Amino acid sequence: MGRWEPDSRGRLLEAAFALFSEHGYDATTVAGIAERAGLTERTFYRHFADKREVLFWGAGLLQEGVVAAVEAAPADASAIDAVAAGLAAAAERLQEGKAFARQRQAIIVTSAELRERELIKLASLSVAIAGALSARGVDAASATLSGEVAVAVFKIAFERWITQTGDRGFAVLMTEALDELKAVAAGS
Amino acid sequence: MGRWEPDSRGRLLEAAFALFSEHGYDATTVAGIAERAGLTERTFYRHFADKREVLFWGAGLLQEGVVAAVEAAPADASAIDAVAAGLAAAAERLQEGKAFARQRQAIIVTSAELRERELIKLASLSVAIAGALSARGVDAASATLSGEVAVAVFKIAFERWITQTGDRGFAVLMTEALDELKAVAAGS
Repeated sequence: MGRWEPDSRGRLLEAAFALFSEHGYDATTVAGIAERAGLTERTFYRHFADKREVLFWGAGLLQEGVVAAVEAAPADASAIDAVAAGLAAAAERLQEGKAFARQRQAIIVTSAELRERELIKLASLSVAIAGALSARGVDAASATLSGEVAVAVFKIAFERWITQTGDRGFAVLMTEALDELKAVAAGS
Repeated sequence: MGRWEPDSRGRLLEAAFALFSEHGYDATTVAGIAERAGLTERTFYRHFADKREVLFWGAGLLQEGVVAAVEAAPADASAIDAVAAGLAAAAERLQEGKAFARQRQAIIVTSAELRERELIKLASLSVAIAGALSARGVDAASATLSGEVAVAVFKIAFERWITQTGDRGFAVLMTEALDELKAVAAGS
């Protein structure tokens, strides 16, 4: 303990995902994850608060990336265009981790607790996007609606991205879903 | 027990809401609710599965009403117009219960468990609306997006309805929020 462990976070993630997939989320323990990774429980707790957080530790980073992109959109961009910039940032961040995202989703759908946690994280993302838009001068109502729209588009594009049999990029699917949203709203 | 109890559901609801408000959700028991209502626990369980369901028993009816209105929209109505019909039905159903809705919301925000449950119910409403739209021949992508949009508009209009100092009707606020959503999507 205390010695340097190369990529202990990555090893813990891999071990946890393998155990969640093989034995189920509920039956997996922190002790089991640490053992599988060849690390101590103490090392586990240096990286994650509990086994649930193994599945959600990236959500904060994703949200920060989205918010930063919304903030960085051109000053004259409309709310929906700033949202598009945020979604593009999310797609770029997640694109390389598709196998991980797919495996994660397969675990989350098995547990009511995890599904609820995922909904909470998405609600938090919506609020964060609305906050970033408000800071850009978008009125409160439009900012809140835009945050909700962003999450709706994200959810749909994400679902397509991990279930598609083809190989279209997440960014392309995100743009497509946003365009569909615009068409729906326009009544076409 | 077994004898006829006039409006026992209403008395249990009132007792539960009073106790949730006075002592908090966690500290309230089914025994306490029944006692306050002057009824037995057995009567409580004839109406509700547990104390949490006192707060959510109307959600199923609301969803049925919204779905029925979406289904009943004119055959040539666009997806968003069918959604508008569903939202109007929700507003009409809830309009008379504003004091109840406000008190309920004040209880729900105090508990992570209740907030999560509320998110699950809204996600279920979104899926149900999407299903009703699919049955109308709307393509799967537009149906899913429309369901998400409907819930986003509902949430925002509901928040305004229960927090407003004025006396504007829920239906008016719902239409207003939907129009704002359309404007956001159009980039205006």
